Amino acid sequence: MSRFWSPLVHRLTPYVPGEQPRIANLIKLNTNELPYGPSPRALAALREAADDTLRLYPDPEALALRTALGQRVGLDAGHVFVGNGSDEVLAHAFQAFFSHGEPVLFADVTYSFYKVYCGLYNLPYRLVPLDDGMRVVVDDYVGPCSGIVLANPNAPTGMALDLDTIRLLLERHPDRVVLVDEAYVDFGAQSAAGLVHDYPNLLVVQTFSKSRALAGLRVGFAYGQPELIEGLTRIKDSFNSYPLDRLAQAGALASVEDEAWLAQCVEQVIASRTRLSAGLEALGFDVLPSCANFVYTRHPNREAAELAARLREKAIIVRHLKGERTEAWLRVTVGTDGQCQALLDALREILHRNS
Amino acid sequence: MSRFWSPLVHRLTPYVPGEQPRIANLIKLNTNELPYGPSPRALAALREAADDTLRLYPDPEALALRTALGQRVGLDAGHVFVGNGSDEVLAHAFQAFFSHGEPVLFADVTYSFYKVYCGLYNLPYRLVPLDDGMRVVVDDYVGPCSGIVLANPNAPTGMALDLDTIRLLLERHPDRVVLVDEAYVDFGAQSAAGLVHDYPNLLVVQTFSKSRALAGLRVGFAYGQPELIEGLTRIKDSFNSYPLDRLAQAGALASVEDEAWLAQCVEQVIASRTRLSAGLEALGFDVLPSCANFVYTRHPNREAAELAARLREKAIIVRHLKGERTEAWLRVTVGTDGQCQALLDALREILHRNS
Repeated sequence: MSRFWSPLVHRLTPYVPGEQPRIANLIKLNTNELPYGPSPRALAALREAADDTLRLYPDPEALALRTALGQRVGLDAGHVFVGNGSDEVLAHAFQAFFSHGEPVLFADVTYSFYKVYCGLYNLPYRLVPLDDGMRVVVDDYVGPCSGIVLANPNAPTGMALDLDTIRLLLERHPDRVVLVDEAYVDFGAQSAAGLVHDYPNLLVVQTFSKSRALAGLRVGFAYGQPELIEGLTRIKDSFNSYPLDRLAQAGALASVEDEAWLAQCVEQVIASRTRLSAGLEALGFDVLPSCANFVYTRHPNREAAELAARLREKAIIVRHLKGERTEAWLRVTVGTDGQCQALLDALREILHRNS
Repeated sequence: MSRFWSPLVHRLTPYVPGEQPRIANLIKLNTNELPYGPSPRALAALREAADDTLRLYPDPEALALRTALGQRVGLDAGHVFVGNGSDEVLAHAFQAFFSHGEPVLFADVTYSFYKVYCGLYNLPYRLVPLDDGMRVVVDDYVGPCSGIVLANPNAPTGMALDLDTIRLLLERHPDRVVLVDEAYVDFGAQSAAGLVHDYPNLLVVQTFSKSRALAGLRVGFAYGQPELIEGLTRIKDSFNSYPLDRLAQAGALASVEDEAWLAQCVEQVIASRTRLSAGLEALGFDVLPSCANFVYTRHPNREAAELAARLREKAIIVRHLKGERTEAWLRVTVGTDGQCQALLDALREILHRNS
């Protein structure tokens, strides 16, 4: 506490990211990074961009990158916003669209940064409980609200909604922005990007941090109609004119141009996910059906926190989220087949030793 | 305008950055970039960091970079904050420290982003006029306030305050943060970083975009006592856990480790600035004494806007800021000696042709 802090700073409860520990030979299955590297074309573009032109500011509009991102889904650059990771894009969206005096609606079990943004921008919110099967119940997203945020697939559950459900929400709330956070969409869910033309209240947010293996580069983006993109741009231009550096723009552009790499990585992750889920079930775990690059799993008679601690002793880290509804569960990133097997072997040993 | 925008978005007047035009053989003297490239060691570090580890998130605390930045000035990492360009650091500082119900004080002629931040965070502010010689008058920074922001050297004037003056302000406002924006300090002003130990209300903000020739990488930082750094960190962790990507951290670290390159670049800029100022004066221009990598200049009987337009026809761009007090002035970045000479030749021709 400090007399210099604004009242807001005293009130804040910041987000706590998954740890990035410095442990040798660590099997890191806690922050949903891809186990494979980024597109070699992206790496080549990054090396090439590391030259004397770095003395110059980047393109504040990131036009080349926005154009390429639009083309992927049949939209022009005016329908695309980019930022320093999807976290920044989400923050701007909360500030730009959700301050109408009514609560923002999102699930009680979802990306925990949403409520942090509400704290940062002083926005009331209402948590909408998932059902007992950890499913989003769209009929519960009713009543006056300032906007709706849906992670699809949801994190940490990995479960996805279909587009008819998204459409239903968009139509029930025509005067409010429905933000669909598609950080994990490439791993098996349907993207709502194709609905942007039909729904002026739809904002779709995606990231380069997961399927494109560029978490270390910090690039996120959003699709929406130009009035939403302009709203985000007004916030961005009042905060930081150049959120994406020259390297990030160059690397992300090359990544977008290498869809084959993306497809190949995603295919491998999905195959590993299937094997990992089966392996966990064979050990007695419940595993939710995942459309993401992680699985959400619990053991009927083992404490999740205890399992996570034991795994950590074996240099394997997974994510355990505290809280009544998540206490029993572990979120496990899908690694390489070798990493997944190491996890299964470790769990088998832990379960056996204590039984 | 849009029904989806928060009331704030309707009210905002975003900052307008200097343009980054795509003109061949342009002499670009409008955004105060260095005319020389960054440290070769920084470029090598960037190329080396462009590898498969980009699949992993960066260190959210940027500990290695903060440690190195602290060591330069005898502080530990707990006294250092880093962000995605000093614009982001400034934005967080306005939100973290300046919301006490009283106006923020800053000069009427200074970095125009300060009032934009006040708009973004709904902070009242009071502009304190420079005197007729475009000097900051510290005795005018009186009365209740939420904080004080001083650019030192000031932009766009280039004129610097000495540390005794900064100390005076710190002592007159012990319960408010005095933010000293030292974007241009390396070009000849005195840094207040050495005062951090003595003044808990001092925040010093610097950038890699000017003297370190890394505008394209977007790295800024701040020095302050741990309670101020913690305030900034609470905002940052409620906004974006990882504002600095892996490449930015690696490149900035290598740049900090190459002080010889910095010293050499600064020396060249100062020598060119002396020649440029003399050349402008020989053409009849007034030139303010600059401690920055730009000069602020006006001609007694030529319109600055007209001169800027004529220069642009010759593919030379300088910055002309609209507004009553800045209308007569041009801000000219110090380029290479060749670029400065080309500017002087072009101005001589323009003045001659129309006389």
